[in-house]
Amino acid sequence: MTTVSIVGGSGYGGGELLRLLLGHPHVEIKQATSRTHLGEYVYQVHPNLRKRTQLKFSDPSQLEPVDVLFLAQPHGQAQHNIDQLSGLAGKIIDLSADFRLRSAADYEKWYGEPHAAPTWLSKFVYGLPELRRVEISSANYVSGVGCNATASNLALLPLVKAGLIETSTPVIVEIKVGSSESGAEGNSGSLHAERANVIRTFSAFGHRHTAEVIQELGLTDISLTMTAVDLVRGVLATAHAKVKPGVAMKDLWKAYRAVANENPFVRVVKEQRGIYRVPEPKILAGSNYADIGFDLDEGTGHIVSMCAIDNLMKGASGTAVQCMNLMLGLGETTGLEFIGLHPI
Amino acid sequence: MTTVSIVGGSGYGGGELLRLLLGHPHVEIKQATSRTHLGEYVYQVHPNLRKRTQLKFSDPSQLEPVDVLFLAQPHGQAQHNIDQLSGLAGKIIDLSADFRLRSAADYEKWYGEPHAAPTWLSKFVYGLPELRRVEISSANYVSGVGCNATASNLALLPLVKAGLIETSTPVIVEIKVGSSESGAEGNSGSLHAERANVIRTFSAFGHRHTAEVIQELGLTDISLTMTAVDLVRGVLATAHAKVKPGVAMKDLWKAYRAVANENPFVRVVKEQRGIYRVPEPKILAGSNYADIGFDLDEGTGHIVSMCAIDNLMKGASGTAVQCMNLMLGLGETTGLEFIGLHPI
Amino acid sequence: MTTVSIVGGSGYGGGELLRLLLGHPHVEIKQATSRTHLGEYVYQVHPNLRKRTQLKFSDPSQLEPVDVLFLAQPHGQAQHNIDQLSGLAGKIIDLSADFRLRSAADYEKWYGEPHAAPTWLSKFVYGLPELRRVEISSANYVSGVGCNATASNLALLPLVKAGLIETSTPVIVEIKVGSSESGAEGNSGSLHAERANVIRTFSAFGHRHTAEVIQELGLTDISLTMTAVDLVRGVLATAHAKVKPGVAMKDLWKAYRAVANENPFVRVVKEQRGIYRVPEPKILAGSNYADIGFDLDEGTGHIVSMCAIDNLMKGASGTAVQCMNLMLGLGETTGLEFIGLHPI
Amino acid sequence: MTTVSIVGGSGYGGGELLRLLLGHPHVEIKQATSRTHLGEYVYQVHPNLRKRTQLKFSDPSQLEPVDVLFLAQPHGQAQHNIDQLSGLAGKIIDLSADFRLRSAADYEKWYGEPHAAPTWLSKFVYGLPELRRVEISSANYVSGVGCNATASNLALLPLVKAGLIETSTPVIVEIKVGSSESGAEGNSGSLHAERANVIRTFSAFGHRHTAEVIQELGLTDISLTMTAVDLVRGVLATAHAKVKPGVAMKDLWKAYRAVANENPFVRVVKEQRGIYRVPEPKILAGSNYADIGFDLDEGTGHIVSMCAIDNLMKGASGTAVQCMNLMLGLGETTGLEFIGLHPI
Repeated sequence: MTTVSIVGGSGYGGGELLRLLLGHPHVEIKQATSRTHLGEYVYQVHPNLRKRTQLKFSDPSQLEPVDVLFLAQPHGQAQHNIDQLSGLAGKIIDLSADFRLRSAADYEKWYGEPHAAPTWLSKFVYGLPELRRVEISSANYVSGVGCNATASNLALLPLVKAGLIETSTPVIVEIKVGSSESGAEGNSGSLHAERANVIRTFSAFGHRHTAEVIQELGLTDISLTMTAVDLVRGVLATAHAKVKPGVAMKDLWKAYRAVANENPFVRVVKEQRGIYRVPEPKILAGSNYADIGFDLDEGTGHIVSMCAIDNLMKGASGTAVQCMNLMLGLGETTGLEFIGLHPI
Repeated sequence: MTTVSIVGGSGYGGGELLRLLLGHPHVEIKQATSRTHLGEYVYQVHPNLRKRTQLKFSDPSQLEPVDVLFLAQPHGQAQHNIDQLSGLAGKIIDLSADFRLRSAADYEKWYGEPHAAPTWLSKFVYGLPELRRVEISSANYVSGVGCNATASNLALLPLVKAGLIETSTPVIVEIKVGSSESGAEGNSGSLHAERANVIRTFSAFGHRHTAEVIQELGLTDISLTMTAVDLVRGVLATAHAKVKPGVAMKDLWKAYRAVANENPFVRVVKEQRGIYRVPEPKILAGSNYADIGFDLDEGTGHIVSMCAIDNLMKGASGTAVQCMNLMLGLGETTGLEFIGLHPI
Repeated sequence: MTTVSIVGGSGYGGGELLRLLLGHPHVEIKQATSRTHLGEYVYQVHPNLRKRTQLKFSDPSQLEPVDVLFLAQPHGQAQHNIDQLSGLAGKIIDLSADFRLRSAADYEKWYGEPHAAPTWLSKFVYGLPELRRVEISSANYVSGVGCNATASNLALLPLVKAGLIETSTPVIVEIKVGSSESGAEGNSGSLHAERANVIRTFSAFGHRHTAEVIQELGLTDISLTMTAVDLVRGVLATAHAKVKPGVAMKDLWKAYRAVANENPFVRVVKEQRGIYRVPEPKILAGSNYADIGFDLDEGTGHIVSMCAIDNLMKGASGTAVQCMNLMLGLGETTGLEFIGLHPI
Repeated sequence: MTTVSIVGGSGYGGGELLRLLLGHPHVEIKQATSRTHLGEYVYQVHPNLRKRTQLKFSDPSQLEPVDVLFLAQPHGQAQHNIDQLSGLAGKIIDLSADFRLRSAADYEKWYGEPHAAPTWLSKFVYGLPELRRVEISSANYVSGVGCNATASNLALLPLVKAGLIETSTPVIVEIKVGSSESGAEGNSGSLHAERANVIRTFSAFGHRHTAEVIQELGLTDISLTMTAVDLVRGVLATAHAKVKPGVAMKDLWKAYRAVANENPFVRVVKEQRGIYRVPEPKILAGSNYADIGFDLDEGTGHIVSMCAIDNLMKGASGTAVQCMNLMLGLGETTGLEFIGLHPI
């Protein structure tokens, strides 16, 4: 059994890691830390775990050595104690934004302050297996992924990979998100009476996850617009782009199917009948799938490419466990088999 | 008192007309027709009207002459009996799509079949006061408006009116809508268990309301992408466009404020603090307001312009009553004073 | 014009008062106070009020004399400065729980601490017109009502008034409530991701509003059980009781209709067809109606009596304005005419 | 491998069976039938199953012999072809209401028509392992369970089993349910715009599931009141009863813990802190747990006992698979390990 611990176990990302790792056949959880909930049973915070574990939250200063350490703290913390944490485990997977960007200058540009551990940036691999499976498999340090970045990256991946996109035309990604993106702390707008029933465009430009799309796909003229809708889990990215002249439906089918064939968690959804004809996050709650689909206006070359994910799974903890599987040489889908629910 | 009747009173648009006209100080409702609910009290279908009216649904073949006739039937019906209906009232306001487009060719292109009464198309005025107040004021025949078209038209109106938009760049309008858009009949995807929690992009291209935006704003390179979200009433249109070189924030403020100042139901929403900083449909339920706002990426000239409305009010019945007020020389806001609710 | 001010204008009850009083034809709002939002426009907190008022929140220590003062502060505050506040206005309507109970001992029993101004308790009239219309009409000091108490009181009123209830059998009231009951501050369980989709029985026994039902209806063996559900506005009280031997359906119809006939905001809802056959809060958002209905098991005498209201309207601010109308000799329904929406 | 087929695979119960059996390590699905969706891929109806199976819906008249046959048809069908179906499999689990009651007279009383195969009633065992584990383990024919009956039965089981309940006092069970209870066909009230935001008491008395509670628990003076709320999956039963004189909190703790200890899918939820202090269905979506809890008014002996389940899992398909495991001598929890999600 591989031993693992989770730093920051009381947030939503930490809770999802606990759920996944408790069901993982090759892993034993040693500790989950939380300052706020120190000494409480983890099931008092994550009530779904009741009758599955008697683990209590422990003090982050009492961490013991393990094989794999997951960091699930709020952004901006891991970079301050990465030196110390790296002494506790040979392999670290950090779900926060601290080590996603390779360039300290980019970090400062998008996060508004200098990075506290810039020399560590080059030691981390960006943790999206659909983009960097080989590197992750041999890495010791893997970053997490931004949920909105992941939906955007996977919506655009087939087009970029097959070279079908017209890069001179700006790419506009419209992203709709559920409330769990705001985390277990939330903000004044997260109060149910204010957050229910919303269609709230909270960021027209400049969302930090944009940096991950630029870095990973090499697209430079791209913007992400973020709109909150009434849902707890889920992201849908709808990317508007232009395909190169001559690109036809069959080229697109080929490109999308290729990505789905190479990646166990990617599915193409493009149906002519039934209720579920396009990617939708609602059926993905708890699953690690990324559903992708597209539609093309053949007259103008305008393509609408969609990707739906569960922001806490494929957009965070699910992908982190998928990375762990690769890093440990386990089957990539181990512990991530949950199919998802319908209806829900 | 002006006498009015409603043809097709059992649908959502008809119900909203009943609600508004029952509260209108200068109007007396004579009849509301419904084949399906013939003989039932209108409050049995629209339960909010209980204790306000003892009106029963009457037979559409038994319509009596009135001053103003509202047509709120499903699309495709009014054009088949407009000759007969026009004998019953000097003024007709048709909420359906039948008389929104001026060109029979456009109608056939977007609706997939020839128009049954093409000579009537030129007799109707497009019923959005923010675009055609003067013509409506002297018109006898006024069309309804598409709810998505209205949100799009009003999102873009300040830019078009002030000549700030770069028309050579495609305009992409991302529209998020509530379930009441599907009408009281719905479809298989409207079942609560399938429709709850959705983020469902049901039309990437080619939505029929696009024709109304092209016709009214003169923009030709424009697309509407429609996504259903979990909400009953409400539309948010988020338009992505490019402003002309040199256009700055102050030009935009001026353009948006001008439209708000000229139109009693338009408000600019662009706050630096609080929860409600941008246009949001949730607080507009039941109100006739259209809230508009914008954000500009000064580096690229990419503008995100938003408009939120209640699809059944400003997007349908509210605007229809506003047109009636203009046609009758009444105060434009009469009977449309409901402020909207917070929280909701 | 009657001048009014609102102490505590930034909460949900205060916001609803502002909405109603802005639309009231005989009232002029002088001030609305808020410490937290001092100096802000009221529409920045209550975005529905935009374009309706330029009022800003003022300092509670700067209150000026008016005809009617509404107190909409959190519970426990008004009792500490009622002496001072009563110097500012001849008529006071307090929405909080401070002056609902007539007995200081009862207050201490249910609220867990002694009342700070016990001599004032007898000066206030319980502000539910359906129970105390005559007293309210001549009162200078009127208390607010608990929303859950109001739904319970009105569900049981027809039975109590007609003497149909078997008082030796315990009355069990199951109450389902929306999230706006928790107020604009909320609590940790109010976060959207935790509060969405809930069916959460947060109080099995001992809810404070029970005291108001005992006091007003004279029922002693009664319990209220509170369950939160996914809705913003609305309360449904479902009361289980036993009718006296021999009570038949026709007696019940008579009793319920009598209450509806005597009260402009009470409606009986009991239909054999359609979707809306029983009282439901969703269509009451923003309206001041209380919809009541019932069902009887004739074999056992078990009656299920229901009452649906909007907690912020009939359960708080709407009833407060109704009381003001009575206190000022105005038409009881003035400014409270909003019909409610369908669908919503 | 055990071979299984599902008759009626396109409904919600059938879809959930497919999901569970696809993930079951000891089972191979041979056929799933559907007349409406004949020839379609099962993932076109149940989109969560995409990339997990290439199974297509087959013709119910083309069923082949298997080890276990699941019947998931609408109520009233299995009783008409049970003779024929029993020729196809040695073991049958029928999810419908057809074989839940042991008495043909009871069936006629509650379902309003005579049973078509009364001699089969005694061959079936009521399929709730928490009540009849031993009989199920040796049975060939097992009925399904009503979801509302299951929540009621498990809420009351600790009290009945320990003999703590005062049977002379009527038991009132208030049940709140999600929309998936109405099935994939729904009804006019199931349309999202009508069903969203509801608190709708659709059955005050006489719900058919009452018969299952009377039969299984032996309580005769019991009523179920059903209220629809805005949720897709989930049931909460809140039972109001009276405990025998002298029963104290410690007796109740003992009784509830005993039931939880004897049953792998039962958990006691009764916390003093945190957000999740009582049983709640939202965290149970997809899980087979039944969470039970209670509160006692020691002064009156009034007990409120709660049970939360996922109606499609513990209330239908999950319990059916649990029965299959028992009938086949497999581990009772096999294939039912999904933990449930938080937040959701």
